[in-house]
Amino acid sequence: MNILLASTSTLFGGQYLEYIREEIIKLFNGADEIIFVPFARPGGISHDEYTDKARSFFSTINIKVKGLHEFDNPVEALNEAKGYFTGGGNTFLLVKTLHEQGLLPVLKQNVESGKPYMGASAGSNIGGLNMRTTNDMPIVYPPSFECMGLVPFNLNPHYLDPNPELHHNGETRETRILEFLTQNDTPVVGLREGNWIRRIGDKITTEGSELTRIFERGKEPYEIEAGSELKF
Amino acid sequence: MNILLASTSTLFGGQYLEYIREEIIKLFNGADEIIFVPFARPGGISHDEYTDKARSFFSTINIKVKGLHEFDNPVEALNEAKGYFTGGGNTFLLVKTLHEQGLLPVLKQNVESGKPYMGASAGSNIGGLNMRTTNDMPIVYPPSFECMGLVPFNLNPHYLDPNPELHHNGETRETRILEFLTQNDTPVVGLREGNWIRRIGDKITTEGSELTRIFERGKEPYEIEAGSELKF
Repeated sequence: MNILLASTSTLFGGQYLEYIREEIIKLFNGADEIIFVPFARPGGISHDEYTDKARSFFSTINIKVKGLHEFDNPVEALNEAKGYFTGGGNTFLLVKTLHEQGLLPVLKQNVESGKPYMGASAGSNIGGLNMRTTNDMPIVYPPSFECMGLVPFNLNPHYLDPNPELHHNGETRETRILEFLTQNDTPVVGLREGNWIRRIGDKITTEGSELTRIFERGKEPYEIEAGSELKF
Repeated sequence: MNILLASTSTLFGGQYLEYIREEIIKLFNGADEIIFVPFARPGGISHDEYTDKARSFFSTINIKVKGLHEFDNPVEALNEAKGYFTGGGNTFLLVKTLHEQGLLPVLKQNVESGKPYMGASAGSNIGGLNMRTTNDMPIVYPPSFECMGLVPFNLNPHYLDPNPELHHNGETRETRILEFLTQNDTPVVGLREGNWIRRIGDKITTEGSELTRIFERGKEPYEIEAGSELKF
């Protein structure tokens, strides 16, 4: 497999996908056209506009982009595509749409056959085993929380450390993930912004500018450095 | 109806339920025993321990507390109870447990018949129409997101204003609620910590030390003062 799952599309003060440009070039090496999955975006921007945003970046690295919503037969489109990028937004909306259209198993099969896949935020969540560690608000009810399992764990994109200056009693991100572990025996990779997961064949590593925080049932959460292999 | 839905159980630096003591005394006036619903708490503390925490507070106002988990027949227990308090934690776990045991309609019917109900955080969410505006992580998959609809809107407890100093690309609370409104035509009451909703008969008001932020489809979000009546 050939996969890149990024915490975020955009770093604070940066341009869309710019911080990860070199990795994207390597990931999609040899593909001159990919499919963009725009379904996570719930409002303010149409599927066409969201696809244009991705298209604008990929044009700078000579890759054409088609939106999955443009096809009458999205299953056929996925099967014929050379690569995939799923943008961020609301994971509940993304997973609901993909399940209802029967597209998750099709995408999974194609990626498992070796076609390159990139996700950002919600698009990375669907590469995990399920979406039970998303940060998003459950604005719609998906028929299932199951995802593609392109990696044998769950992700928490936009992982955020506790802020001791915040005088607020909502749960911290770490508390939420530890609560997940009381109900699920599934490792969780807390991906800070600036970090991503890279899978090449069977080797899965964490990459990027920050340490990555790992949560496993029965262990204290721990930090690993960029380049570390993930083996659960 | 006689209802109190609080944003949080505990203010920063404060003691459990202390900030809202006088309101609780008024709400449960005449009841010498209530049932505590402990199902939202996913870990670190058992249902017994969580019930003890509530019991400890209520003993100071001469009200006995029994945990709903203590009964062999929870439906009968709800029907025979004089009042209810549902504590906070994870709304997904709370709603899943209540749906699976068939308890939501029983609780709803009793509250609609006039028995006092209090919720804090997740326990307040279930008083709304559905749980689609919870902040919680979807650590389990409930059979439905529908709630009791004791008030004709949804709540967002622990409502948090955007923090301009946070250099992070996760969505703000306001963005999430506006995304909810693209998919649902349901008003949302953003309850800052320190605030609560009070329903006495047909009159529903916001109360507490902070302004309350209201979100309706097709309108700019707006603020209302304590004591304002909620009419949608």
